[in-house]
Amino acid sequence: MPHFSNTYFDNGSTSWPKPPEVAEAMSDFLLNGGGTYGRAAYGRVYQTSMMVEECRNEIANLLGVRESANVVFTANATQGINSVLSGLELNDCEVLVSPLEHNAVMRPLEFLKQTRNVTWKFLPASEDGCIIPQKIPQVITPKTKLVIINHQSNVNGLVQPVGEVSGFIGDIPLMLDVTQSLGNTDVKGDLWGADFIAFTGHKGLLGPTGTGGFYVRRSDDLPPFWRGGTGSRSESFEMPLFAPDKYEAGTHNTVGISGLSAAIANKPESNWTKNHLNELITGLKKIKGVRILTADEPDQRGSLFSLVYESLKPSTIARRLYENYHIEIRAGLHCAPQAHRYLSTFPAGAVRIALSPYHSNEDLESLGMVFRDVLD
Amino acid sequence: MPHFSNTYFDNGSTSWPKPPEVAEAMSDFLLNGGGTYGRAAYGRVYQTSMMVEECRNEIANLLGVRESANVVFTANATQGINSVLSGLELNDCEVLVSPLEHNAVMRPLEFLKQTRNVTWKFLPASEDGCIIPQKIPQVITPKTKLVIINHQSNVNGLVQPVGEVSGFIGDIPLMLDVTQSLGNTDVKGDLWGADFIAFTGHKGLLGPTGTGGFYVRRSDDLPPFWRGGTGSRSESFEMPLFAPDKYEAGTHNTVGISGLSAAIANKPESNWTKNHLNELITGLKKIKGVRILTADEPDQRGSLFSLVYESLKPSTIARRLYENYHIEIRAGLHCAPQAHRYLSTFPAGAVRIALSPYHSNEDLESLGMVFRDVLD
Repeated sequence: MPHFSNTYFDNGSTSWPKPPEVAEAMSDFLLNGGGTYGRAAYGRVYQTSMMVEECRNEIANLLGVRESANVVFTANATQGINSVLSGLELNDCEVLVSPLEHNAVMRPLEFLKQTRNVTWKFLPASEDGCIIPQKIPQVITPKTKLVIINHQSNVNGLVQPVGEVSGFIGDIPLMLDVTQSLGNTDVKGDLWGADFIAFTGHKGLLGPTGTGGFYVRRSDDLPPFWRGGTGSRSESFEMPLFAPDKYEAGTHNTVGISGLSAAIANKPESNWTKNHLNELITGLKKIKGVRILTADEPDQRGSLFSLVYESLKPSTIARRLYENYHIEIRAGLHCAPQAHRYLSTFPAGAVRIALSPYHSNEDLESLGMVFRDVLD
Repeated sequence: MPHFSNTYFDNGSTSWPKPPEVAEAMSDFLLNGGGTYGRAAYGRVYQTSMMVEECRNEIANLLGVRESANVVFTANATQGINSVLSGLELNDCEVLVSPLEHNAVMRPLEFLKQTRNVTWKFLPASEDGCIIPQKIPQVITPKTKLVIINHQSNVNGLVQPVGEVSGFIGDIPLMLDVTQSLGNTDVKGDLWGADFIAFTGHKGLLGPTGTGGFYVRRSDDLPPFWRGGTGSRSESFEMPLFAPDKYEAGTHNTVGISGLSAAIANKPESNWTKNHLNELITGLKKIKGVRILTADEPDQRGSLFSLVYESLKPSTIARRLYENYHIEIRAGLHCAPQAHRYLSTFPAGAVRIALSPYHSNEDLESLGMVFRDVLD
């Protein structure tokens, strides 16, 4: 039997395991902390508010942005994306997207298409979905009002060359979805001139579900998506004008944020190397009938890839892996039909291997063995 | 020194302590569970999905509604209220509200006033804010499209006679905000004909922050507020048409929901009685210069009340209580300027005492003593 330190390979959906400090911090918060954020004036509230602000600072650092007050907590990245796409009040214009976008972007865009005549088209890209920065000026028109890039694809793990792209879009606002990349790949929001960044806490950062949010560079230009109590300017029926309060109505997920802080502070070094991942991919590609969805360029590969096999449906492969080796993965479309269409794996999808830092090089070697077995 | 089992009286902001099983369940979920909801096909995902559906059923029970699929999880009640008020697409019409509404309702309504000519006016009420059902027909006009009722005020703890009200509003849709009442007072959604109910998990239910949501009786009439991946109908750029999926885009706060389930399953019986609360209120009313914000009718009193004193600012009273007795309360407007205006305590607000089941009758007696001391 091939040996695995950990048979959970669905970290593209949600990470597991977490650093043990995540559960400890959340327990401690529930048992001994528990104050609400930014409301009232006693020790428990100050401690909680400070904890939230420290986490906000940590996220700003990780996003590579200076203005931590412009980092907003929401329940997940999807709410972050919707906050931006709804708030921008786009009308009768065009959005450029990478060809590997997730439904978290495509479904709000489809809604804007139906209701506000906002159309979208692809950024120029190669066959693996990698944007070709030099060709971008050819597709920009006076109607182009936003560029959206999924930093690391949740289907083939391709990490887009965002730094280069940003040099070719001029003044058009840039929105990044770093749901899959944050914690796995460097994000340099300010350097790249990102205007909006949506992030999550429970994937590459190894934090708990229920955490995530967005960054906005110029909060004056983005109205709130939802409204309610903020603990600030409470005398007014209008939302405060300043970030983050203008975007954070209602009680914060303080216990989740305590876990996210602990995850960031205790993130382990990766136990696997890019070389070993590349060896696994090279090996799997040699199996007759197998196609690996991954970046053509090895240095654009992130922490996940997908696989299709001509003789077996993805769901069958997933079932065999689970039944024979208890390997937990997600087969199908991964909520990213656009990416699968572009990669010609629609509608059946693929099986996805998404690593966490807890996986080892030995796990990658074992994966190669079990794929050879189940694809037999 | 007066004795307290627990000096935290800010349960109107967020409850503390929680049943110890909340931290245990969340730790267990993080360490041993951790699957995502409704995506992929392996044991960990089934268990998590089942856990979420069981919690949904529990919430439906607590809300007194039959259709648990129409119970939607969001990050807090505010998102639930916004989901309804945004989705209804009200235009050029009128909304009737109780005079004790929170900014979670008033701020979205103010936005609708500014953008869609949706005005609001009060339901007829007595001086303590209690709606007078029989007078409602006098204020209904052809433009009245929604009635909103804060079931238990977060300022004076008055529990509105929703059952009676619903008999006087005819076919006009009814939205309840049970943020403060759920877990403290019976909610009977179906019996009362509620069309929408917004709830939270971290107050009366003693669950973790990051949990809450809303119920919608006819989901066909309410479009989604945000859009994204749902793990269902993934091939489509449109949201699924069925509840709860149409409203639950993005990863669920699974760890929070595991804690909420544990809170519901392990909620303690109240250690204090209404009689003792009424005695405390009667006693405090006798202090010269004190005014208690509470329901005139003792059986309409919920789990909280507020206090103002002619000679001291609320913040001063709160500071004295905290410094001398470590009593944690919230002074000010409680994000409910409307309620304070109606009760003539705007803009200074009041100090609020919000109980949890962990408080005892002795705590109430001790509270009476310390108020007599600090109001000296």
